[in-house]
Amino acid sequence: MSLLYFIDLFGTAIFAISGVLLAGRLRMDPFGVMVLASVTAIGGGTIRDMMLGATPVFWIGDTSYIWVIIITSLITMLIVRRPKRVAWYLLPVCDAIGLAAFVGIGVEKALTYQDSHLIAVMMGVLTGCGGGILRDILAREIPMVLRSEVYATACMAGGSMHVGLLMLGLSSTSAMLGGIAVTLSIRLAAIRWHLSLPTFALNR
Amino acid sequence: MSLLYFIDLFGTAIFAISGVLLAGRLRMDPFGVMVLASVTAIGGGTIRDMMLGATPVFWIGDTSYIWVIIITSLITMLIVRRPKRVAWYLLPVCDAIGLAAFVGIGVEKALTYQDSHLIAVMMGVLTGCGGGILRDILAREIPMVLRSEVYATACMAGGSMHVGLLMLGLSSTSAMLGGIAVTLSIRLAAIRWHLSLPTFALNR
Amino acid sequence: MSLLYFIDLFGTAIFAISGVLLAGRLRMDPFGVMVLASVTAIGGGTIRDMMLGATPVFWIGDTSYIWVIIITSLITMLIVRRPKRVAWYLLPVCDAIGLAAFVGIGVEKALTYQDSHLIAVMMGVLTGCGGGILRDILAREIPMVLRSEVYATACMAGGSMHVGLLMLGLSSTSAMLGGIAVTLSIRLAAIRWHLSLPTFALNR
Repeated sequence: MSLLYFIDLFGTAIFAISGVLLAGRLRMDPFGVMVLASVTAIGGGTIRDMMLGATPVFWIGDTSYIWVIIITSLITMLIVRRPKRVAWYLLPVCDAIGLAAFVGIGVEKALTYQDSHLIAVMMGVLTGCGGGILRDILAREIPMVLRSEVYATACMAGGSMHVGLLMLGLSSTSAMLGGIAVTLSIRLAAIRWHLSLPTFALNR
Repeated sequence: MSLLYFIDLFGTAIFAISGVLLAGRLRMDPFGVMVLASVTAIGGGTIRDMMLGATPVFWIGDTSYIWVIIITSLITMLIVRRPKRVAWYLLPVCDAIGLAAFVGIGVEKALTYQDSHLIAVMMGVLTGCGGGILRDILAREIPMVLRSEVYATACMAGGSMHVGLLMLGLSSTSAMLGGIAVTLSIRLAAIRWHLSLPTFALNR
Repeated sequence: MSLLYFIDLFGTAIFAISGVLLAGRLRMDPFGVMVLASVTAIGGGTIRDMMLGATPVFWIGDTSYIWVIIITSLITMLIVRRPKRVAWYLLPVCDAIGLAAFVGIGVEKALTYQDSHLIAVMMGVLTGCGGGILRDILAREIPMVLRSEVYATACMAGGSMHVGLLMLGLSSTSAMLGGIAVTLSIRLAAIRWHLSLPTFALNR
């Protein structure tokens, strides 16, 4: 379980970086950069906890998340102008790892607060996608998660596998690992082959 | 009271449809459509419950709301391209029915958690208008509810009638029905005669 | 402490005015004006309370805040067209006073719900800046707080001074006054000499 905690903090750092990069395109001041990084990294889990009534929300009880965001944001602002030194092409892959962990953690947490498997899958998707949606709202963009890429769809598949394995009687840890594997595989496949679902378009 | 529950689910379905139709104009993928439908249908009540401390929020305890949203969204995506088969002009009328029920439910729920009639009216308006405001934020539009149409104003009038009748000593059910009748009448009149309040405009 | 309560209501009124003025530029109807005024004035503290689990949120238990917003909004809409009678240039100074009080109140409230000083500073910044961020999201603007001006930075400095003085053993009231003085001084200096931090800009 301490491996999962490590992956959770790793995902927090990766999501924070994606917030910093968007803030840089919008010419924010250093504080604005921190806000956008925080919203991206812990926004989904925060909404989840407020809906479940799991308050104070998770990062109030364990400030490691905030320190990870602060340190990651500072480092990213310092090194981001030297693109040759950093393997930026690894970012989507790291994002997929963090996303898969966030979904698993969201499903698990939802099941400790209520019994419905349907709600658990929703909370997993919210934990994974909520931060990115809030980031795009703050940056005044229509959330990309909603428009294309097999992103939320991957979360939904992984969350469904997670609760499906629980219903089959697998242990909590095995079920979570199965769910994480599904989210991660679909997301990596979508990145590699540029998969996306057909969009639903109306001209009205 | 089971009639009110039915109207509540009916309003949830109608609000979900309005989310699906906006998602279609924005060319969202099927998951994005579901998110926008959910936010529109249960967003207002969710914020109300989080502010009141009524957690877990209402749709976590009763998943009927989520199933109504999922099924309504799927059906809408399937039939929306055949406009001749569907009486779309009924949508604003159905929306008015759902809105009136949402306001009544919001006022009633607020009064079970605290005593202020002022707060109860605010929570009624929030339950009715919150989802539409969140929908428009996600779609990157300035919420129409805030700009024109006698929409929120109808909610405020209905909510005030509801608490006014309670203060006059009427039963909880009678007061709610009176409030719902006011919200519905004003909203239908606004649709029929294109009523809107004068806007407050500054050139600074 | 009753002076602080008075300053809190004063800040609520000032923040409501800033919401009304933005609503006027967007040509909202009277209800939309009220919503934008409320979101600006009590939005930050509302999110703080929901995250801490301090529900029902503060303005549900004490409706003075709502009455201040309603009355301030009505008066502002009536007199705003007579610019010669009103000293509008005082608005940023009043805003700085309200902001400084909000940060102090946010830090103090956070410390009654949990122990971390880091979280307390974050909650102070959120209380001061959250309402303005929500206002700008509703008005479809990238939050100015995040882009320029030494605004959130002033909150962070004041909140840090507040918890620093507490750690040095000062009384709760003295520490809060010290923090408020720092936020106010930095903010007034930024207004007087047009200070702003360098922005973090990327061309990617």
